[in-house]
Amino acid sequence: MSVTVDITAGKLIVLLSDFGMRDGYVAAMKGRILTECPDAIIIDAVHEVPPHNIHQGAWVLGQYWNWFPTGTIHVAVVDPGVGSSRDIVVCVADGRILLAPDNGVLSWVLRNAVHVRTLILRRDVVSDVSPTFHGRDVFAVVAGRFASGRVGVDDVAEETQSIQRLSDMEPSRQGDRIHGKVVHVDRFGNLITNIPGSWIREHAPSVRILCRATAVERVCRTYADAARGALLALPGSSGMLEIAVREGSAAAELDAGCGEEVIVQLAGGEKDPGGCG
Amino acid sequence: MSVTVDITAGKLIVLLSDFGMRDGYVAAMKGRILTECPDAIIIDAVHEVPPHNIHQGAWVLGQYWNWFPTGTIHVAVVDPGVGSSRDIVVCVADGRILLAPDNGVLSWVLRNAVHVRTLILRRDVVSDVSPTFHGRDVFAVVAGRFASGRVGVDDVAEETQSIQRLSDMEPSRQGDRIHGKVVHVDRFGNLITNIPGSWIREHAPSVRILCRATAVERVCRTYADAARGALLALPGSSGMLEIAVREGSAAAELDAGCGEEVIVQLAGGEKDPGGCG
Amino acid sequence: MSVTVDITAGKLIVLLSDFGMRDGYVAAMKGRILTECPDAIIIDAVHEVPPHNIHQGAWVLGQYWNWFPTGTIHVAVVDPGVGSSRDIVVCVADGRILLAPDNGVLSWVLRNAVHVRTLILRRDVVSDVSPTFHGRDVFAVVAGRFASGRVGVDDVAEETQSIQRLSDMEPSRQGDRIHGKVVHVDRFGNLITNIPGSWIREHAPSVRILCRATAVERVCRTYADAARGALLALPGSSGMLEIAVREGSAAAELDAGCGEEVIVQLAGGEKDPGGCG
Repeated sequence: MSVTVDITAGKLIVLLSDFGMRDGYVAAMKGRILTECPDAIIIDAVHEVPPHNIHQGAWVLGQYWNWFPTGTIHVAVVDPGVGSSRDIVVCVADGRILLAPDNGVLSWVLRNAVHVRTLILRRDVVSDVSPTFHGRDVFAVVAGRFASGRVGVDDVAEETQSIQRLSDMEPSRQGDRIHGKVVHVDRFGNLITNIPGSWIREHAPSVRILCRATAVERVCRTYADAARGALLALPGSSGMLEIAVREGSAAAELDAGCGEEVIVQLAGGEKDPGGCG
Repeated sequence: MSVTVDITAGKLIVLLSDFGMRDGYVAAMKGRILTECPDAIIIDAVHEVPPHNIHQGAWVLGQYWNWFPTGTIHVAVVDPGVGSSRDIVVCVADGRILLAPDNGVLSWVLRNAVHVRTLILRRDVVSDVSPTFHGRDVFAVVAGRFASGRVGVDDVAEETQSIQRLSDMEPSRQGDRIHGKVVHVDRFGNLITNIPGSWIREHAPSVRILCRATAVERVCRTYADAARGALLALPGSSGMLEIAVREGSAAAELDAGCGEEVIVQLAGGEKDPGGCG
Repeated sequence: MSVTVDITAGKLIVLLSDFGMRDGYVAAMKGRILTECPDAIIIDAVHEVPPHNIHQGAWVLGQYWNWFPTGTIHVAVVDPGVGSSRDIVVCVADGRILLAPDNGVLSWVLRNAVHVRTLILRRDVVSDVSPTFHGRDVFAVVAGRFASGRVGVDDVAEETQSIQRLSDMEPSRQGDRIHGKVVHVDRFGNLITNIPGSWIREHAPSVRILCRATAVERVCRTYADAARGALLALPGSSGMLEIAVREGSAAAELDAGCGEEVIVQLAGGEKDPGGCG
């Protein structure tokens, strides 16, 4: 599972954080990166991760990291333990470099990557580090140095096998019954589960999906297959089963959030008369 | 009105969407673009269009598209019909290329552009397309290919004359009386109408403006011409008549939103004693 | 204090505004910049400054401007007086160029910079200027021209000594007692004061900090030194004393906002039994 891979960093640095865009935190990181590497290309991925929410940061990072070219440097700063004894991980996954606190924020990357190396950043690599803002004082500096080509992963970090992972990421399956949960609620109020869409697709339309004591009667191909305002389920663009309301919010409709249990009965009954397509 | 224009795409790709900045959707698009064209320059225009709000997306796009250099590739993804039979438009307008779903989001561009070509993207251009996220799987890929110079507009799309437009975009004018409406409420609570500022300017200060049964007594040149907290009207930076409260919110003050009727009486009465300047 | 410094502008233009990311204002600025200077590199710093809030804009700008390389062009548009008689400042501070309305938004930069020149932009430099959107029609154009190398600071602006500054920026200190205030509330609800952290550090843990009639009992090194949900104070990453709740919001806990008085008693009593570390 862990394979030694050579990696050449490019100039592309992609930022995820829970810093928002109303304070100067993200800007300070960008300034620091460009001071280390004036020709770095900085891409804003996501800065509106809810404060300290490692689960959301991990999920969202997992949605885009491998759409970027190999050589991309990803930085993910959701870091409630900043300045404590928590380590910083340097991860090489399928040709991309990722920098993040060792708190689980890389969990979905690690789950989905094929070739992975995990290393711990040495604590003596950067000096003049404030105890409360490693995004600026450590992550940005190291990412900038990688992009500059002056240092490589093995110059600043040491191999490890034991990094933090979120627990309970996988659904359980007993025969035709799947127990999963909502792992992300997106801006549209779509409830994204940890149940692979492929588990459902072969069985639709004879599946039964239950969330918050509500049966989701329609399994569709896309949102527009349902009527406006109708509740539906579909294999989403993340690859996971998603519960949605067409041009509405499933989160509001079902009063459901992250962690909510979702149960799927694969082939218990008759063909669903409300099914799409 | 429609003129055949040669177009050379540059490296600049400008993104508008209703994806927000808390999910990974925008980031996935950026990754896909940079995979197709590693030296593309990606500019975030607007990602906080309210979910599925084509009217707002169309207005906002209309505010900035032609301030960018010719050769710019604009991508506008407000796409409630994703995965349905709706087409994707490739539009060449005054030297810029625009990619958008065929749902009206290009309406203000089409209204304001001088030289326009409209084409429909062929459905076989991109493979492995998810039915729920064309932003990532189609728009980003095609935009990246345009920027790379590998394909041109006519390689992937076919001319059409019939693309979707929003209805009721224009105000009506009968003699001295104009019936218009609010087409956008901006972050400051300014109510931006579809009534050209030039229609008013020549008649100020003897115009009467009515919105939500409230007479806007002052027609000013800029916000600071009124007292703090005062209601005013002015020809705004969009070129349209705007109703504002200095350092306050006209939307809150008048409890008005998009679609609200605005009536202007051009020369009905005596000089307005509350007029500015 | 004011020293004549030669300055060479680079290609980097960093934007702060109160325009938000749901309207087309920021995008129009970017388009205008790239029209003036096609190879400008535009960095979004902050666009979610609360509307018209010069104090917040000034603080936030002060947090990141000098983390960027010398030659960086900073543009800060929080501009309630747009179109009025207010001037536009061109400031050269420690090797960076800053463009802003003359309304105090540069106050924290001016307080912290070592070498400063301040100039007023000549009003004839740009033509076709709307009275309500100088961000697009003046700031973007001038910044783009600086980045293009076609014009320098002294080509478009004239030296001045009298530019606007915010009042009451500094805390007062009488013996062991410091009177300061909250100057910024960040996304996490941290209350950032104008009291230098260095004033406290040498005296901790025997300091007493009072805000909203609540004694902050713990002075820590970082957030994670306190228990989850506990109120603490610490020298923050801005260099200033900060009041925080670990993984919570001090602003909500104390019902405090900007301008709130903070009193520090440096060595009045016994060692604080709740102290960290």
